[in-house]
Amino acid sequence: MKDIYMDHAATTPMDKQVVSAMNPVFEDVFGNPSSIHSFGRKARKYLDEARRTMAKSIHANEKDIIITSGGTEADNLALIGTAFANKDRGRHIITTVQEHHATLHTAEHLENQGFHVTYLPVGENGLVSVDDLKNALTDETILVSIMYVNNETGMIQPIREIGNVLKDYQEIYFHTDAVQAYGLLDIDVKEYGIDMLTVSSHKINGPKGIGFLYAANNVKIEALQFGGEQERKRRPGTENVAGAVGFQKAVDLAINNKTDRNTSYQGFKDQFISHLSDSGINFEINGDEKKSIASIVNISFPGTNVESLLTNFDLDGIAASSGSACTAGSVEPSHVLAAMYGENDERTTNSIRFSFGIFNTTENIEEAANRVVKIVKRLTT
Amino acid sequence: MKDIYMDHAATTPMDKQVVSAMNPVFEDVFGNPSSIHSFGRKARKYLDEARRTMAKSIHANEKDIIITSGGTEADNLALIGTAFANKDRGRHIITTVQEHHATLHTAEHLENQGFHVTYLPVGENGLVSVDDLKNALTDETILVSIMYVNNETGMIQPIREIGNVLKDYQEIYFHTDAVQAYGLLDIDVKEYGIDMLTVSSHKINGPKGIGFLYAANNVKIEALQFGGEQERKRRPGTENVAGAVGFQKAVDLAINNKTDRNTSYQGFKDQFISHLSDSGINFEINGDEKKSIASIVNISFPGTNVESLLTNFDLDGIAASSGSACTAGSVEPSHVLAAMYGENDERTTNSIRFSFGIFNTTENIEEAANRVVKIVKRLTT
Repeated sequence: MKDIYMDHAATTPMDKQVVSAMNPVFEDVFGNPSSIHSFGRKARKYLDEARRTMAKSIHANEKDIIITSGGTEADNLALIGTAFANKDRGRHIITTVQEHHATLHTAEHLENQGFHVTYLPVGENGLVSVDDLKNALTDETILVSIMYVNNETGMIQPIREIGNVLKDYQEIYFHTDAVQAYGLLDIDVKEYGIDMLTVSSHKINGPKGIGFLYAANNVKIEALQFGGEQERKRRPGTENVAGAVGFQKAVDLAINNKTDRNTSYQGFKDQFISHLSDSGINFEINGDEKKSIASIVNISFPGTNVESLLTNFDLDGIAASSGSACTAGSVEPSHVLAAMYGENDERTTNSIRFSFGIFNTTENIEEAANRVVKIVKRLTT
Repeated sequence: MKDIYMDHAATTPMDKQVVSAMNPVFEDVFGNPSSIHSFGRKARKYLDEARRTMAKSIHANEKDIIITSGGTEADNLALIGTAFANKDRGRHIITTVQEHHATLHTAEHLENQGFHVTYLPVGENGLVSVDDLKNALTDETILVSIMYVNNETGMIQPIREIGNVLKDYQEIYFHTDAVQAYGLLDIDVKEYGIDMLTVSSHKINGPKGIGFLYAANNVKIEALQFGGEQERKRRPGTENVAGAVGFQKAVDLAINNKTDRNTSYQGFKDQFISHLSDSGINFEINGDEKKSIASIVNISFPGTNVESLLTNFDLDGIAASSGSACTAGSVEPSHVLAAMYGENDERTTNSIRFSFGIFNTTENIEEAANRVVKIVKRLTT
């Protein structure tokens, strides 16, 4: 029985073209971009080109792209880097209860460092409210960090409306973790009023260990690490040139195939949901499906629990996820679903995230749906 | 005319075997090691194996290896992570004036955060004195960070003696940045009394963008970044599995070929120096050559200056380095040579680091020496 991967929101397989783009760099472009000799200049050229592609994909200036080791570092840099650099203007930060832990735990760290953080709620639809945001703004607010698409539910947050609201507050930076949105949704940082934006390579079929933070030129930001003067003094360390080139190819592919991928992933999602509906099993989609990204659906299976679902899925060759943190083998209730439905709602403990991507086909989605239906029937009868 | 790479201390070409080890991982092992399904478990297995190889190479426990994005992050984590975690015990840190900027600039950051840092001097031989270290220890000292091999001069610091001294001070952590030592010198962290040790992959023919910090089990260390619980909560972010596997292969090759590489690189160094000597040009080796690592030699050419040397070297296809920071094209005097000889000594402005590695051969060293002699003659007559 072939394993079927339905966990593209956790990480994605690398595109073969990405591997092909990296290999010549591994072999021929090994210089340190900070070296002034020919080997260094050649590496610099590749790095600059990769940076230009990243910038262009969000309509940004290439100088404003800080290449990091991934999305987590980019989120940390956005929050910690601006909090400390702007603390004289205020110590209030606004985020939401449903952020990725890279944002949430960083915000909690900042609370320990004397910052005051407001965690906006989300509705049962999985969306943050723009009015709640407006009401939370104070004279002390220096930063708003709200994810573009939630990684567990796929819900697309009202980022453009929030950006519009915040255009009237030039002194408040707007950061969005766009890790799940990037590559499927259009992003124009200037038009949308976004000051900082996080992207991760391995979520878009690029290599692991690389990402970027866009930080607009006017954003006052302190480096988190110290050493060389790379990334315009905002992120030290010898640049990961081959990683950047692989990331560049993944960006190119994502941008060029955006429409096709949306159509294809939405097709997988619709097919999967139809099959479950037709089967007669009891299930419920978490959040407002119409406002979710094509690649993610989060489904509650009443009468089951995450542990048995995931164990059975794994045995039957379905790779999906509870979308929540897994510590030492035990699955904690999802903080996102708890935020939507309340901590004691059974959906927090019987829901599974299925996420679609380049490893899916109409055939393996059909097969996956068959297996899921069988398992749910077995567990609920 | 073929360019000759003599800047292996800046970065190294990737070994073909490293690329070959990474490619199957790119293609088949794409899971997120934190995922509990089969794809995740497979990735975890590769990551664990890589970590074991890293640990074994320094006689450490695999639990004590924190995989980072490189040497700079490892140095930052060692210094900042232990400084803040142990500040209640004291706020005094000892390092040296000749550290890499990843340590020096981090130490300066800690001074701004209320820590007191002693920068030990180095002698004309390029070595830190163990007596100076002993005299600098106070009841407030929580951390000593001294590099194993200086990256500009190649001078091997008395790490074993320092480790021995510090074995009597269990409450003082001993960190060494072993980036230039690793792979050529034997390292046994327990025997040598080393509590923390930094290694970078791209200096040993592995991929860029990955490194590790060894931190002994008893070391109280705070994470610098926040998010997932990876690396035993000491370094969040989806693990760079393919990078770790490439790094593992580079470690394997370095450890297995340690003797051969020492012999070979020392041979290149001796050959190069002999040729310069035979040519009759005026030059002087910086530091105590007998106590330097096989791969690095730092040479002063009286009557010249770094800018013209590097420009001419580059034109004639020699890739070497001033060993000092290069900012926007201008070369600053080396802080290491300034520490050895004084800020106004002309050696700080007329010295070049040549560093040897797998891209060298007896033939290209001969050719490089010919070119260097010609250039120096041209510049000094």
